[in-house]
Amino acid sequence: MRSYPIFIGDGLLTDRALLERLLPQRNLLVVTNGTVAKLHLAALVRGLGERTIATHSIPDGEEFKNLDTLNTIFDALADAKLHRDAAIVALGGGVVGDVAGFAAASYQRGIAYVQVPTTLLAQVDSAVGGKTGVNHRAGKNLIGAFHQPSGVLTDIATLRTLPARELRAGLAEVIKYGLMGDAQFLDWLEGSLDQLLRCQSAALEYAVRRSCEIKALLVAADEREQGARALLNLGHTFGHAIESATGYREWLHGEAVAVGLLMAADLSARLGWLAEADVQRVRALLQRASLPTSAPRVGTARALEFMTMDKKVKGGQLRLVLLPRLGAAQVSSDFDAGQLRATLQEFVGP
Amino acid sequence: MRSYPIFIGDGLLTDRALLERLLPQRNLLVVTNGTVAKLHLAALVRGLGERTIATHSIPDGEEFKNLDTLNTIFDALADAKLHRDAAIVALGGGVVGDVAGFAAASYQRGIAYVQVPTTLLAQVDSAVGGKTGVNHRAGKNLIGAFHQPSGVLTDIATLRTLPARELRAGLAEVIKYGLMGDAQFLDWLEGSLDQLLRCQSAALEYAVRRSCEIKALLVAADEREQGARALLNLGHTFGHAIESATGYREWLHGEAVAVGLLMAADLSARLGWLAEADVQRVRALLQRASLPTSAPRVGTARALEFMTMDKKVKGGQLRLVLLPRLGAAQVSSDFDAGQLRATLQEFVGP
Repeated sequence: MRSYPIFIGDGLLTDRALLERLLPQRNLLVVTNGTVAKLHLAALVRGLGERTIATHSIPDGEEFKNLDTLNTIFDALADAKLHRDAAIVALGGGVVGDVAGFAAASYQRGIAYVQVPTTLLAQVDSAVGGKTGVNHRAGKNLIGAFHQPSGVLTDIATLRTLPARELRAGLAEVIKYGLMGDAQFLDWLEGSLDQLLRCQSAALEYAVRRSCEIKALLVAADEREQGARALLNLGHTFGHAIESATGYREWLHGEAVAVGLLMAADLSARLGWLAEADVQRVRALLQRASLPTSAPRVGTARALEFMTMDKKVKGGQLRLVLLPRLGAAQVSSDFDAGQLRATLQEFVGP
Repeated sequence: MRSYPIFIGDGLLTDRALLERLLPQRNLLVVTNGTVAKLHLAALVRGLGERTIATHSIPDGEEFKNLDTLNTIFDALADAKLHRDAAIVALGGGVVGDVAGFAAASYQRGIAYVQVPTTLLAQVDSAVGGKTGVNHRAGKNLIGAFHQPSGVLTDIATLRTLPARELRAGLAEVIKYGLMGDAQFLDWLEGSLDQLLRCQSAALEYAVRRSCEIKALLVAADEREQGARALLNLGHTFGHAIESATGYREWLHGEAVAVGLLMAADLSARLGWLAEADVQRVRALLQRASLPTSAPRVGTARALEFMTMDKKVKGGQLRLVLLPRLGAAQVSSDFDAGQLRATLQEFVGP
């Protein structure tokens, strides 16, 4: 796997020397959305200096992460007459990063791109690891490519303009890293949650850095998701089912993941892996972050249908990431259908 | 680069042991088109034996090699509830292979696929090398992925059901291999053309095998088309311009390549690389194969516009594959605009 640098800091968006190093290409397409463009595009373009820069805005929201939106990026690339020596800059959240990354993977069978994530969720998750793609009516991220960026530029300053709900949704992924990979980081999060919610710079920077480290380690060991990388999906198979069942509209990804984390903890407790007190600790942390701890009543059958459509199914056998203890995760199909049903019925109804 | 086997023979489509070896997967989607399905689908399904096999037909013709058609394959994959452990079988010509291969590259970020090319063009070109993709209004194959098949199964018998015009178009690519890579193969082609046009089995098998060898050697050295692989584009930058300017409708790809080969020879002669007698030798061989040796009058400016949109442009500098002598090719930008214009004006008009 090709490695690439991740820069994390306060004010990097206008760091001209860093941008020049990350993006030697003279022809760029910046893909962003209207909201982010208003806040950060001018600063980035200033930071990029003398180049030929085209920009293209895509609509904001997970429901626009689809092939039609992807096609508008192909149109923009072709209209700007960009060739293989050009690069894409993805300025925005996870939707912008995933779709723009897939456009970079597919345009002329692959051009360079740089991620400039502006949401906490994207900074700790989607911008790292090279997964790109779009949704399909049959499932989230069903279509895509593994395509590593040339680099990731994470400006903590962009989080100060982020709506509080989105910051909290991003914290769900940060909490996931503690739960699945690092009990000490989980302790730190419990102690630092108030600073994080107040956007305290040093706390955010550490939370993003530690999350990226945990993710990068697993991704490096396993770029194509055959083994260790699957652990990153803690809470996600449940979460994806909630998002799919609600059409990607009502719930932010991080909010769905938050409930998914609690559902994974709940099922782990039913297996005797976690104590009930561990589950309550997860619930309490999510509640302090004002994250949801109950799911919409989409029904067990419907949730199961979306879960078995998930990419993590192998040979018809549903495999879930569960918690042997807080701070360690394991892929398992070692639960019976009744235990899974009990968790689903409690959270999404019969 | 991952290597994969290419099997070439008469009657392989129903070779159950070979198919089992190439396709261990139990869940398959066969992508084909209506014409090919009528001729060969039943035989292939028999050869595949006991499996869960879904089939999906896409419309026939280069103009349907687009994102909309690709999306119908994603729909078929999702409808069949196929997961990462499934495989796609591409049964058909270059359009089927390219679109189905791109679907395999992108569905769930990459599943296995096997090429079963049923046209001469696909057997000697598109089915080998792992290039997949679709066209965009701005250019041919502008969107796609490098995704190697698990294997290629080439049944010479399918060529006996191929319309004569398509067989001849495929011969243009075969002639290309002689021109760019092997003077002795070019001699053999001149001596064996009548047997090839009569679909004589041994001649076809040798022509396909030798073409695949020449291509595989260059591709293995250079999967991502930075260097040697570019030589395979002999005649293609000219040919693509003709296809683009005529909307991919009137001309078969191989027919456009045939004229493109002659244009490359013509420009090579203007550079003093080839003798006029060499150009006439190329023209004579194409004419014996009933391939076109003159282009539609799309105009020099329009042709140039499509040529500079081509993926082979680097840093704004048009690079073409030209012939230092018959049997050897070289990527060059070492021609002046006047020489290129002279060739274009002769073939496509002022």
